[in-house]
Amino acid sequence: MADYDRRTILAGSAAMAGLATATTAPAIAAGRDDKAVRDAIAKNHDAAVQRLKDWIALPSIAAEGRNMPEGAAHMEGLLREAGFQTVKQVPTSGYPVVFGTLDAGAKKTMGIYFMYDVKQYDPAEWTSPPLEGKIVDRAGLGKVMMGRGAVNQKGPQATFLAALHAMKAAGRKLPVNLVLVAEGEEEIASPHFPEAVAQPDVLAALRKCVGVIIPTGWQSPSDGGVAINLGAKGALELELVVSGEKWGKGPKGDIHSSQKARVDSPAWRLVAALQTLVTPDGNMPAIDGYMDKVRPLTPRQLALIAENARASSEEETKRLLGVSQWIDGMTWEESLVRLAAVPTVNIEGLVSGYTGPGGKTILPGRAVAKLDLRLVPDMTKEDSLAKLRAHLDRRGFNDVEIVVGGGYGPTETDENSALIRAQRATYTRFDVPTTLYPRLAGSWPGVVFTGAPVSLPAGQFGLGHGSGAHAPDEYFLIESSNPKVAGMDEAALGFVDFLYQIAAIG
Amino acid sequence: MADYDRRTILAGSAAMAGLATATTAPAIAAGRDDKAVRDAIAKNHDAAVQRLKDWIALPSIAAEGRNMPEGAAHMEGLLREAGFQTVKQVPTSGYPVVFGTLDAGAKKTMGIYFMYDVKQYDPAEWTSPPLEGKIVDRAGLGKVMMGRGAVNQKGPQATFLAALHAMKAAGRKLPVNLVLVAEGEEEIASPHFPEAVAQPDVLAALRKCVGVIIPTGWQSPSDGGVAINLGAKGALELELVVSGEKWGKGPKGDIHSSQKARVDSPAWRLVAALQTLVTPDGNMPAIDGYMDKVRPLTPRQLALIAENARASSEEETKRLLGVSQWIDGMTWEESLVRLAAVPTVNIEGLVSGYTGPGGKTILPGRAVAKLDLRLVPDMTKEDSLAKLRAHLDRRGFNDVEIVVGGGYGPTETDENSALIRAQRATYTRFDVPTTLYPRLAGSWPGVVFTGAPVSLPAGQFGLGHGSGAHAPDEYFLIESSNPKVAGMDEAALGFVDFLYQIAAIG
Repeated sequence: MADYDRRTILAGSAAMAGLATATTAPAIAAGRDDKAVRDAIAKNHDAAVQRLKDWIALPSIAAEGRNMPEGAAHMEGLLREAGFQTVKQVPTSGYPVVFGTLDAGAKKTMGIYFMYDVKQYDPAEWTSPPLEGKIVDRAGLGKVMMGRGAVNQKGPQATFLAALHAMKAAGRKLPVNLVLVAEGEEEIASPHFPEAVAQPDVLAALRKCVGVIIPTGWQSPSDGGVAINLGAKGALELELVVSGEKWGKGPKGDIHSSQKARVDSPAWRLVAALQTLVTPDGNMPAIDGYMDKVRPLTPRQLALIAENARASSEEETKRLLGVSQWIDGMTWEESLVRLAAVPTVNIEGLVSGYTGPGGKTILPGRAVAKLDLRLVPDMTKEDSLAKLRAHLDRRGFNDVEIVVGGGYGPTETDENSALIRAQRATYTRFDVPTTLYPRLAGSWPGVVFTGAPVSLPAGQFGLGHGSGAHAPDEYFLIESSNPKVAGMDEAALGFVDFLYQIAAIG
Repeated sequence: MADYDRRTILAGSAAMAGLATATTAPAIAAGRDDKAVRDAIAKNHDAAVQRLKDWIALPSIAAEGRNMPEGAAHMEGLLREAGFQTVKQVPTSGYPVVFGTLDAGAKKTMGIYFMYDVKQYDPAEWTSPPLEGKIVDRAGLGKVMMGRGAVNQKGPQATFLAALHAMKAAGRKLPVNLVLVAEGEEEIASPHFPEAVAQPDVLAALRKCVGVIIPTGWQSPSDGGVAINLGAKGALELELVVSGEKWGKGPKGDIHSSQKARVDSPAWRLVAALQTLVTPDGNMPAIDGYMDKVRPLTPRQLALIAENARASSEEETKRLLGVSQWIDGMTWEESLVRLAAVPTVNIEGLVSGYTGPGGKTILPGRAVAKLDLRLVPDMTKEDSLAKLRAHLDRRGFNDVEIVVGGGYGPTETDENSALIRAQRATYTRFDVPTTLYPRLAGSWPGVVFTGAPVSLPAGQFGLGHGSGAHAPDEYFLIESSNPKVAGMDEAALGFVDFLYQIAAIG
């Protein structure tokens, strides 16, 4: 899933150049300034690029059951080559999680989250074959590698591995130990990842960590800026299904529409159930008790949002979204507060009966609404689902099925945690402008780490740039011609530096 | 369109064998008993079958703009060969209508309705190529011709033409003059057919007719029975469309679903608009004023329905429909009354956002409900549309677009009209059990003839059998091995006989 609204976030951060810079950067000679490591990265460049290219050529897609054992095995190999001493597959009731540890004899341990799966793709929509990993020129950026998974997440992950290879080649011990978990079901909303994390050995290893990062490459092309997200909403994807079969009324299959005069309609029943879930304007959840656990934003969170509002462009965001006004004619700042503060009940899709061009006179036997619910602290996936079920049952919609696709609760990380302070230190050392954003409206499974039983700070980190996640022509920047944005080598150095910051910051 | 629910109707009539037989049959030596005509039909058999086969090989599909000029030209040729003296194309703002007259010097004139278009098809779903018109054996029936248009309506129409060829070959003058109109847009709900009928020469010709028939072949395979329908509901197919574009709120295209927190949703707006159109159970229209023009069923209509209820099988109908109970637990007779009496607002289809397997986290920019509305006398298409628009506007849904696909009002024909009496006379002479059904819940554009300015009795007529209209493996019975059902030759004789009955009945 990892469905951050990347484009919009970047549009925001680009406009916020220089807004908030870190103030917590101790000077460390190692990392960014270590010539031996820089040279090793440069020397290993071609090997690192080839490693990414080879990885892109092997797409693992959980939704299609495609190359899953191959993807897990490949992931194991990549970790062993990078210096992980123990690497194994942790079985789950879905696809296995790959678990690796690297003991550097250091005092601190850092957690790393990888995914070895990628999103589905349609080669017909691409200008370059999605498995070829072709290097192409991109105006204003430089040479990029184009392929499925290039930015989500093989590119940033391969860059992190390149950092480890360079440290080894330069004869440097890692400043921190590593614990890495790589799942194969991220794109289907991580349904079995918590199982693997709950395994005693995995859990024990993770609990030694100071925090967990997912490697990213989200620098803004306009100013090189990065938004540091202190949390994200949770997400719950599900289908509401009404069928003649389950209902016991209406037809079991599609029948001639003239029968509507005497036969109940699953589609009308779906409409009746749906309209109870939100206020009449569709803008606030109306599920009984759904708002009970909503924790209000803190004054600090509101202040961060106000800063973001002042420094970012409403017009640009509206243009990118194709939206001419916010709900209820809200101001820009109000819209940002709402984006962070309120849970949602959204219709992703409606499917019933005939969906082609024109009409077809049928009374459909089945109707489906695809919903996604965004959750804020202290809501949970389980509690929200239970409330939805109770809400429907209370209104007599016991037959309306809830088919859960996946999801997880919201995640939060303290801005004063070592993880966030180390991030800001490295970004500052690389002259990367940063902003703090209190809560992404999009979602990622960070709660697996920030929630019980792991309970660690977790977030994204990385220099570099890529785009097109889940879309055609996905790419990752290899050689930058843009002085504000890191290429793959500089991004690798960024990861090295970050590990030193983690080691240094108490 | 012509979306009678054929299977269900036949299931009913099969169960009603012998219920109502005609009592109005004067003995006429001609027609059924004319040996010269019978011999001519037999002699022409191969030519008639080849004519149908050639016609099936030329599919005209208005929705796809396929073979429309070719189809109209072919239709002209068929009419000329069958003895029509004047044949021409009548232009409309859509595809042309073919108009032919055959002056036999008779006192009376009969109107005939043809269509030269067929429904779309997917060859992959057929066991025999849909344009090949292959003769295949069908258990319990005999040799059938399989192909798109075989029963809807090329088979029955070719059979009617075979009747004319045989009369000519036997040296018989037709007992009535003929006026024939053939449209090419029946399958897209006849949007321009009324234009052609309103042309002065076409209108003048039709007004001389005693009535209009559409040739059919709907004998039940189990008892050879035919239901004589005295009317049909009107139908109105339309889409309700909510889009960010028109609304000025929400996104213009699909955007990331996390934006729901601050962006309006066209899908939720569609749900809100939809649920105002029907009662909460989805079973009665709630459009303001929609029921005002509903004319109650007469005692005679109710009596006919009661007869039908007694003679037909509720269990069999439920089994065929895959329905275990009627609305509100109604009885069988109540369900049949409702089928004839009440107008409907049905959801044919719902389409918004992501409609594939699983989910996709988007906020769709557009949402569409495909509706079909069934109308009873004295409702009209125009008035019903106006009321729907006013209903939505009154509730502030001015932005919700109504995109009309097609439609027409309800149709009625008096059971005492010469047209119906002639039908019953012929059916009786061929030992075909008949039932009278007051009003089809399905629809056909009969109102073009029964309504102003033509104002004639109109209905279906024909012996023979076929099935699979709009479906794969559509067929028409050529040589019957079932003693209760007419093959193509006997059905041709049925048309000859019917023309004599029309001439005789005052």
